[in-house]
Formats: sequence, C-alpha cells, structure tokens
Amino acid sequence: MIDFRENVKRMQGYVPGEQPLPGAKVVKLNTNENPYPPSPEVMKVLHQFDGDWLRRYPEPAATAVREAAAQVYGVPADWIVAANGSDETLALLARALLEPGRTVAYPTPTYSLYVTLAEMQDASVVEVPYDDDYNLPVEGLLDVGADLTFVCSPNNPSATVAAEADLERLATGLSGVLVIDEAYADFADENGLGLVGRHENVIVLRTLSKGYSLAGLRLGLGVAQPPLLEGLQKIKDSYNVDSVALRLGAAALADQAWVEVNADRIKASRTALAEALAAMGFRVWPSQANFVMARPPQGDAGRLYEQLRERGILVRYWDRPRLADKLRITVGTDEENQVLVEALRELTA
Amino acid sequence: MIDFRENVKRMQGYVPGEQPLPGAKVVKLNTNENPYPPSPEVMKVLHQFDGDWLRRYPEPAATAVREAAAQVYGVPADWIVAANGSDETLALLARALLEPGRTVAYPTPTYSLYVTLAEMQDASVVEVPYDDDYNLPVEGLLDVGADLTFVCSPNNPSATVAAEADLERLATGLSGVLVIDEAYADFADENGLGLVGRHENVIVLRTLSKGYSLAGLRLGLGVAQPPLLEGLQKIKDSYNVDSVALRLGAAALADQAWVEVNADRIKASRTALAEALAAMGFRVWPSQANFVMARPPQGDAGRLYEQLRERGILVRYWDRPRLADKLRITVGTDEENQVLVEALRELTA
Repeated sequence: MIDFRENVKRMQGYVPGEQPLPGAKVVKLNTNENPYPPSPEVMKVLHQFDGDWLRRYPEPAATAVREAAAQVYGVPADWIVAANGSDETLALLARALLEPGRTVAYPTPTYSLYVTLAEMQDASVVEVPYDDDYNLPVEGLLDVGADLTFVCSPNNPSATVAAEADLERLATGLSGVLVIDEAYADFADENGLGLVGRHENVIVLRTLSKGYSLAGLRLGLGVAQPPLLEGLQKIKDSYNVDSVALRLGAAALADQAWVEVNADRIKASRTALAEALAAMGFRVWPSQANFVMARPPQGDAGRLYEQLRERGILVRYWDRPRLADKLRITVGTDEENQVLVEALRELTA
Repeated sequence: MIDFRENVKRMQGYVPGEQPLPGAKVVKLNTNENPYPPSPEVMKVLHQFDGDWLRRYPEPAATAVREAAAQVYGVPADWIVAANGSDETLALLARALLEPGRTVAYPTPTYSLYVTLAEMQDASVVEVPYDDDYNLPVEGLLDVGADLTFVCSPNNPSATVAAEADLERLATGLSGVLVIDEAYADFADENGLGLVGRHENVIVLRTLSKGYSLAGLRLGLGVAQPPLLEGLQKIKDSYNVDSVALRLGAAALADQAWVEVNADRIKASRTALAEALAAMGFRVWPSQANFVMARPPQGDAGRLYEQLRERGILVRYWDRPRLADKLRITVGTDEENQVLVEALRELTA
C-alpha cells in the first residue's frame, strides 16, 4: 500500500480534453487549439535546430524568451517568469501560496484546474458563482478575501471577458494574490496587463498555446512585479522550460504580425459561427476568446456532444452544474465550422 | 508584501550549475552533459517536425515515449510515467508523499535538489552520511524509516554506485517509498531496475539528459508498479511532456546502439581521466557515471575551481561540508579532458 497524502488520495485529478492519437481523422473543436499553423519563423528555427542545443541543459532563467516577451508586453524582462505552459505557472502559484488553513477563491463555472491545484495543496476552496451574463462577481470575491484568487479572462468556458474596471476594484480590495489567467487574451478587445504596474499582488498569465498556435510546445509566461515572481522562481524546477521552447518561443513572440493576422481571421470566423448558432436557436454568450459557449435550444447538450462525436466532430462537454446544458466549441477554420454547423442543423432539426 | 508560505520564505531554492549563454567559448565539464551529439534518428525527427504537432496539445499520457521506454526497460508501458526531466519526477514524488509531519531521508553528500523538494513540502529531513568510500548506509536509512527515501545511484557527486544487494535490503526493510534515482545508469555496470518487479514501494528514475545527449529536451522516466504511479499521474500537469519531447524521446529510446557506443567511449575516457588525475596525486572515487569526484593533493578545490574558470574550463565545486575539498568533473571528449588535465598539472605544480 502506497501511503499517499490524504488529500492526494481524495482528489480526482484534472481530466483534459480528448487528444486523438496521431492520424485520427476528426474535426477537432474541443481543446481550443488555433486552426492555423505556427509562424514560419518558428518552423525555420525548428528545422535548423542544432543538436548541441539539445545536448546541453537549457539556460535556466529562460532569458531569451523573457526578453522577447518583455518587448511584447512593455515591461522589463525581470517582470516575467517562463514555465512549461500556463498550467505550470498556475501550479507554481498554488504551491508558493496555498497550504492547509489558506483559502483559494474563483468565480464559477471556470477552468477546472483551479480546484485541482487547491486540492493538491489541501487548501480551502470558495467558489463564487457568476451571474447568467458572466459579469465578474467582484463583491463576492472581495467578501471571501482569499489568499489566492483566480480570474480566468476571457473565461473558460464562457468566453466572456472581465471588465478592466472590475479587475481593478478586485486587485485594490484584495490583500492576497490575484491571478488573471489570460490564456485567450490574444482574441480579446481588453485585458488586465495594465494592472501589473499598479498592483504588486497581481500576476497576469499568458501562453503561446492559443494565439501562437504552439499548444504542443508548452510555454507559459507570467507577468508581475519582481517580489511576486521571486517566490515562483525559488520553487520552479531549474530547467522547467526546455531548449526547444526557449528558442521557438522567442521566435514566435518576435513575429507579432503572424499572431495578429490569425487572431483577426479567428475573430471573423467566431462572429460567423456565433451568428449561425444563434440562427438555429442556440444561446451564445458574447465571445472574446477562440471558442464559444452555446446552449442548444432544447438544452440537450450531452446528446449533441455524443452524436457529434460519432460523426468525428469533437467539441467539449461537461456533465457539471450550470454546464450540462451547454457546449464549448472551439472556433476552427470556416470549413471546419461549416461542418459543425451543418451537423448541428441536422441533429437539432 | 506577498505572503508566501513560511517554508517557501525560509528556503533557499536549488542552485543549478552555470549554463554559459549561447556562443560562449568554454570547456564545459560542470553539468554532466554528454559530449557526443544526440542520435541522428532524433535529429531526423526534429528536422522534419510537422507544424501541426506543435499547434495541437501533446497526447497527455505520453504513450509513444512510454511504449518505447517499455521496450528498453522490459516492463509494461503502464509501469512507466514520463515527466519534464527527472527533476519533475522527483518533484511529483515529493508532492504526492510529503507534507508537514512526514519525513524524507537520503544519504549525503548527494544531489542537493532532494532537500529543496523536502523544504518545499515542509517535511522533516534526516540526512544519513555516506562513509568515506560511499557505501550505501543501509542500516542508517532503515533506522530512519522515512516516508520517502532518495538514493542517487550512481551517486551525484561521488559517482559511486549502490550495490544491488544493498538496495534490495533497503527496499525490503522500508515501508515508505524508495526512489532510486538512476540519472547516470547508462554509464554503470549495475542498476536497481530489477527491484521494481519485486517491490511495490520502489520507483527507479531514468532520464534522457545524460546517456541520450538530450539534457535540453527535458525527458525523465519513472519505472514502478501501477499503484505507485497512479498517485503521480493524478497530480502531474496534463501536458507536462511536450510534443517535441514525445516524438524525439521515442526516437532516442529506439536507437539503443547510439547510446551504447557513446557510453563505451565515455567509459574509456573516464578511465583515462581518472588515471591522469591519480597520477597527479588526486584521490578519485571509483566512477560508474559520466563524471568523477576528485580530491586535489592539497585539498584546495575552491582555488582550482576559480583558476580553471579563469581559463575557460568549467567544473563543479560546492563550498559545503565534505565537498569543499573536492571537484566534480564531467567526462568530456578526450580532447576536452586533456585540456583540463594540462591546466590542473600547471595549477598544482
């Protein structure tokens, strides 16, 4: 009998969206990948990659990628931490700040990794419900006054964005750390990056997984003032960002034009997809991300999820409170979205 | 003021060996990298890498790499967990098993990450000293009876290997988990892999960093019976192993001939290096790794470390009890070793 910690025994673990094995023919609209390829500059670095860069350990401070990110975010490089995807940045925050007797809060429904990370640290969890329009429950979160507050914006799975003024009120009123998880910021009209300069307790998380078409590379970036980053640097694995992510990440960040062109295409497709779904009677929440949350006219989301899956179309579905009547659909290419819309038209007829 | 956990505030953090920035001209014998390049099969996969593999999330169970490792280790694929370097596998074990009130034990001097991981989990630490010949202190470790026992074999920094019979006695006598950290097993004549089948509380850690010349890729593998791995799978980040490590790792594991040829060259160079050092009056512990621990005739290791560094030769030095009079020297190519030996000859004349 392996005697794991009691909280580890109790916890379920996070369940990621389905990743079909190589070669599977599917329309994959379930894990919010970008439908367009990574920048040609990234592929050039990859295809000319030197064996010596693999042979040696990566530079532990990830300087190249932090300097490239500093240019994009308009902050000094020492305001940035790099990690093995935003999931690792989130885990570092939980491990630095949470323990039994401490509290984590977040609005729900949201990214279900937050509760997993809290369970791993055996911390108390207070969930504050969003209203039906997904306005940020600022007063509710201030009432909790947690040691660590997560706000996902644009929120996964609702696709809605938190107003900067709401984030500002929250940051001002909290004495604990506020994490603004902006994995989808590249598709949004507003973000909370400006708060970092004004609040030493705020960290904004970005990732190259969505906007940069690099989900397979695993590169997440946290932006905060140095005292907050110090604790994360101390507990991170020395070589958490590998040499490939370091060099490809720097190349990707340097090619902002590529990110913007693809984001613009995705935003246009998002509008068309939302309109097509609305025309079929779906309720679609206003999306600032590369996915939409949609409630089918009959609320029979579980059935539709299964029937789409049988046709080789993957979308995301959770049999959980407030989500069991909804689908989360990644915005694909116009062709992929069309396949989905036509399937839904038949299945809801 | 960011209110980190008290143990995080107290801890120092692990300090990795120096990684010179790209382009620096040094003889790098300080962080145990393999002097020979990765397998041509690995470079082929890298240079033909498809953008779609970067665009999509990695397969979360790391099936391709676990299946390739299963062939090499002669165990089923579900006896293997893959992680972002052995550092992550070690961290997963600490997080699954350690908390305040629990104890970790290991023989010292050894890999200094173990104490950092224990501090991160706020666990109690009992260090059991090696004797001067670095025999495994089996009775001492059994007396502690820790929840988690780390044995590094071949041991970093002594390069000595634990006898399989000693590991067997330890595994049998412990009710807690025994981690046999075999980062350097590819250069050793014996290892503890056979214990995994006989002991459900044993996990053997391997890495592609040294034997496979892939320190920059970050790929660690843990071999244990499924109940032990279950707890680690539950707490690991879903996409901890990126798509590049998955595909290149599988290719590297499939090319065992490459690993063996290079290990043989390194072992021959190791013998020559140890003999040259001994001829100058250094004490050299018998090495089963791709590095040697050596005590200069006058014990003035700190001075030599600095003077080698001034000449562009990096070796590893720790100003710590029992290590301050020794150097840890990675076995490089014969040419690199020759540069080192000649420099030491001058500096100790």
